[in-house]
Amino acid sequence: MTSREAARATLENLYRIFTVPEAPESTLGAIDQAISADVAGFLQNHIVAIERSIEDIEADFSTSTIPEEPTFVSDYTEFVKENLVAHSVHTAAPGFIGHMTSALPYFMLPLSRIMTALNQNLVKVETSKAFTPLERQVLAMLHRLVYREDDAFYDQWIHDSGNALGAFCSGGTIANVTALWVARNRLLAPTGSFRGVAHEGLARALQHLDCDGLAVLGSRRGHYSLGKAIDLLGLGRDNLVLVDTDADNRVDMAELRSECRRLQNENIRPLALVGIAGTTETGNVDPLEEMADLAAELDCHFHVDAAWGGPTLFSEHYRHLLAGIERADSVTIDAHKQLYVPMGAGIVVFKDPTALSAIEHHANYILRHGSKDLGSHTLEGSRPGKALLVHAGLSIIGRKGYELLIDMGIEKAKSFAEMIRQHPDFELTSTPELNILTYRYCPEPVQKALRKANVEQSSRINLLLDQVNQLLQKDQREAGKTFVSRTRLRATGYREQVTVLRVVLANPLSDDAILESVLKEQCTIVLQQDIQELLQQVEALCADIGTPPTSACA
Amino acid sequence: MTSREAARATLENLYRIFTVPEAPESTLGAIDQAISADVAGFLQNHIVAIERSIEDIEADFSTSTIPEEPTFVSDYTEFVKENLVAHSVHTAAPGFIGHMTSALPYFMLPLSRIMTALNQNLVKVETSKAFTPLERQVLAMLHRLVYREDDAFYDQWIHDSGNALGAFCSGGTIANVTALWVARNRLLAPTGSFRGVAHEGLARALQHLDCDGLAVLGSRRGHYSLGKAIDLLGLGRDNLVLVDTDADNRVDMAELRSECRRLQNENIRPLALVGIAGTTETGNVDPLEEMADLAAELDCHFHVDAAWGGPTLFSEHYRHLLAGIERADSVTIDAHKQLYVPMGAGIVVFKDPTALSAIEHHANYILRHGSKDLGSHTLEGSRPGKALLVHAGLSIIGRKGYELLIDMGIEKAKSFAEMIRQHPDFELTSTPELNILTYRYCPEPVQKALRKANVEQSSRINLLLDQVNQLLQKDQREAGKTFVSRTRLRATGYREQVTVLRVVLANPLSDDAILESVLKEQCTIVLQQDIQELLQQVEALCADIGTPPTSACA
Repeated sequence: MTSREAARATLENLYRIFTVPEAPESTLGAIDQAISADVAGFLQNHIVAIERSIEDIEADFSTSTIPEEPTFVSDYTEFVKENLVAHSVHTAAPGFIGHMTSALPYFMLPLSRIMTALNQNLVKVETSKAFTPLERQVLAMLHRLVYREDDAFYDQWIHDSGNALGAFCSGGTIANVTALWVARNRLLAPTGSFRGVAHEGLARALQHLDCDGLAVLGSRRGHYSLGKAIDLLGLGRDNLVLVDTDADNRVDMAELRSECRRLQNENIRPLALVGIAGTTETGNVDPLEEMADLAAELDCHFHVDAAWGGPTLFSEHYRHLLAGIERADSVTIDAHKQLYVPMGAGIVVFKDPTALSAIEHHANYILRHGSKDLGSHTLEGSRPGKALLVHAGLSIIGRKGYELLIDMGIEKAKSFAEMIRQHPDFELTSTPELNILTYRYCPEPVQKALRKANVEQSSRINLLLDQVNQLLQKDQREAGKTFVSRTRLRATGYREQVTVLRVVLANPLSDDAILESVLKEQCTIVLQQDIQELLQQVEALCADIGTPPTSACA
Repeated sequence: MTSREAARATLENLYRIFTVPEAPESTLGAIDQAISADVAGFLQNHIVAIERSIEDIEADFSTSTIPEEPTFVSDYTEFVKENLVAHSVHTAAPGFIGHMTSALPYFMLPLSRIMTALNQNLVKVETSKAFTPLERQVLAMLHRLVYREDDAFYDQWIHDSGNALGAFCSGGTIANVTALWVARNRLLAPTGSFRGVAHEGLARALQHLDCDGLAVLGSRRGHYSLGKAIDLLGLGRDNLVLVDTDADNRVDMAELRSECRRLQNENIRPLALVGIAGTTETGNVDPLEEMADLAAELDCHFHVDAAWGGPTLFSEHYRHLLAGIERADSVTIDAHKQLYVPMGAGIVVFKDPTALSAIEHHANYILRHGSKDLGSHTLEGSRPGKALLVHAGLSIIGRKGYELLIDMGIEKAKSFAEMIRQHPDFELTSTPELNILTYRYCPEPVQKALRKANVEQSSRINLLLDQVNQLLQKDQREAGKTFVSRTRLRATGYREQVTVLRVVLANPLSDDAILESVLKEQCTIVLQQDIQELLQQVEALCADIGTPPTSACA
């Protein structure tokens, strides 16, 4: 082939990929149909359960050079099937209860395809048209879920071009950042000759406010995105003050008050209190009413991170757990968590419908004053039409459907906690309030010994148990049948942080039989030699204390 | 039905939506198949061309209450078809050349479905496994496209657990924010007893550096995300110094140098220079080599916003236009622009593979030290597996395929510019360097009159022409056949900002016939009475100057 012929062939090939759809009988077409027909079956058939090491997988993704020549779609698809899909994580599996993932409602897949095919850009009406009112409606619906304002309020604000009731984000982190950005810019708003922090910067703004810093306060269970936010905003991680929690993993209000006083004495002003509605690690809810009182007293912003627990508001039975959330200035809710939308959708709503004007911006070619462009009130610029999927969930599942999902999750967590309490080999390390709990492998006799142990003995035993639980979690993940995650926290009754197993029960398909099988598998894993050796050391330490343990598993 | 029966029915319905796929003959199944078989046809058939007013559309999205009861998927799908899809924007249409959208390669749709079905979360290996090495590979490939390091470099860094060559973001805004965040934290890094801006905050950091502020400098063509970034980072919009551009819409280096001196005299330190590789409005490239020299001289960060123009590097013929980009400390490239990936994928790469450690963070339950979790080096937390689509584009289209797309776009812009120059009724207002240009309706005799006009005459005529072009753009958009966007800028030869029409030529399906039809339609639109009345006023003003215009269109 001459080079001119080659060029023409490339050009034809190029037009083809833009104009000719994959044939149904092609490799990619067949996968596409298989997913349409039965996504659960597809995932089950194609994801290899047994773990390959990450280093091994990396070998398939080690070339840093972009291929010179085009590849046939079918060849590429084979590669994806064998090397990517096969070694992905089956996040939708009912036994995958370690992270905040779930099976998705089936309609999310074809609706996602509509979204992708339309490829709207929500930054401006000119590239999204009806998607802009749709997104505004979704923001209003979630605003109403939290704040319960009346019809007149929403009639006034829902489509108001100068304002937005909230911001649609790629996730909870951007939502939390947006909330604290708004809080900072509102506290340091223009007044008199001071033109505001947005224009003059933080150093001058602090001079203007005559204080040495701004602090954000919450509990140690706060999400790590708060650390990113306070760094990004220039406030400094030193001023992210995370106080201890009580036995129920809720912020210790006395300590919170005392830290506020300390800061004020140091001439550091509390910018915001952050309450958590569903901590990532234990699923607990801070005392939001009391926090709202304190925020009012301090005249500071009150943000609630309800990324996980927000949808609890759907439930007539459990929404009381979040009482006080309606007093928050801003609330984060992740749609890709308990709204069952695919990855990449977070939302922040603001009590005051004009709050987002603190970060408003414009440009000559879009986001013009008076336009309805949503991009003038978001941190992100170009954004996809993910709001469709939230709208679909709210419409198709409905308030009552979500209520049922929430209720089921919370009740399942209660019954799993009971299963753990009854089991002679496990120790519940946090009582579930919503649908998240933690526990660890720690046979009853060891629990008894620990209650009698002195500080040094207890710390030596816990160190060994940490290793046991770490190995247990790793081996279970690698076996690929079921999955729990792990974290470290100060469990009820212990002075030091211990390694615990973490379970999130949001997948409606994770039933009691699955939960039983998780524990049963763990009992089998601990029989492995490396873990048994550690347990023998635990046994010896317990014998010193005077309570020789015997494992019911073994 | 008793309430217990009703509850059981809801529960069954709920399980169904998680376990039973849409039937192929269902409303949603049928749409799904139609999109699979022929997305172009689907969009053509379902998007209504003629514009409904946004206020009218809002009526369909005006309820703020979340529906109590579930809705049938088919009913919801009908709603989506009639009220959302019908009134979306046909961003893929070859005549939609006003914004940075394009038809997508067909394989993107089924691959997007695989991505959605797998629903991986890239924040951590435990919920993404093979997707993590894949994303790292994509980052390395784009890093190499920009920086052209050798194999040894990439072998060392590509899968290094402590570092990342860049960050995958939801878009260019987060990418630019990440770049400037890294720049700020590196300049104000821990040293001696100072623990760095990340911990101590910006006010103390500036004291430590003994300066009164940090500035970011670039040209007036800079993207509006820079304003958001500098506000967010606490530096203040006053310190975003955007200087004038030369006749080719490139930053005026003399002015840039003079502004740097002014700032230094005011004890404000230049934090970063931002060069643009493909300005949003005119597609021009700043003199990157000269900017790199200046940045080196000032010892400041050099960021290149190549969100649009980055893929020009694929072209052997045109990559020289971006010469100097390899000297940038960080570079933003949007995958949802000229990598032809669906909305929501931006990337920032860093020359120094350890740069992102300036914003590194960890948490107890994920992002543990030594883990390969990508989330420890990204602003965002949970993120979808969009990297698959970039990987697919790079693999299937290949370097040469992208080269062809880039070359075609640039050559098409040249030929459209020529078409405009030859046309008696239009004036080219910026010469295309890449594949973006601006022009306006301004008949030749008016152009001649403007050259003879004094300041006041010229400003009166331009004011009228602004109205003409604004109406023209609006009417064309509403007619729904073709679309150009508009902005305001100081066009070559004019003192004041004028309203211009903006065209982006990235869709390979936008051929010469389409471009001709765009101009032809515009010539018809100006015949409308409201525009003719404005043009008569222009004519009268031109007559005063002594050059009566006659429109070739009319």
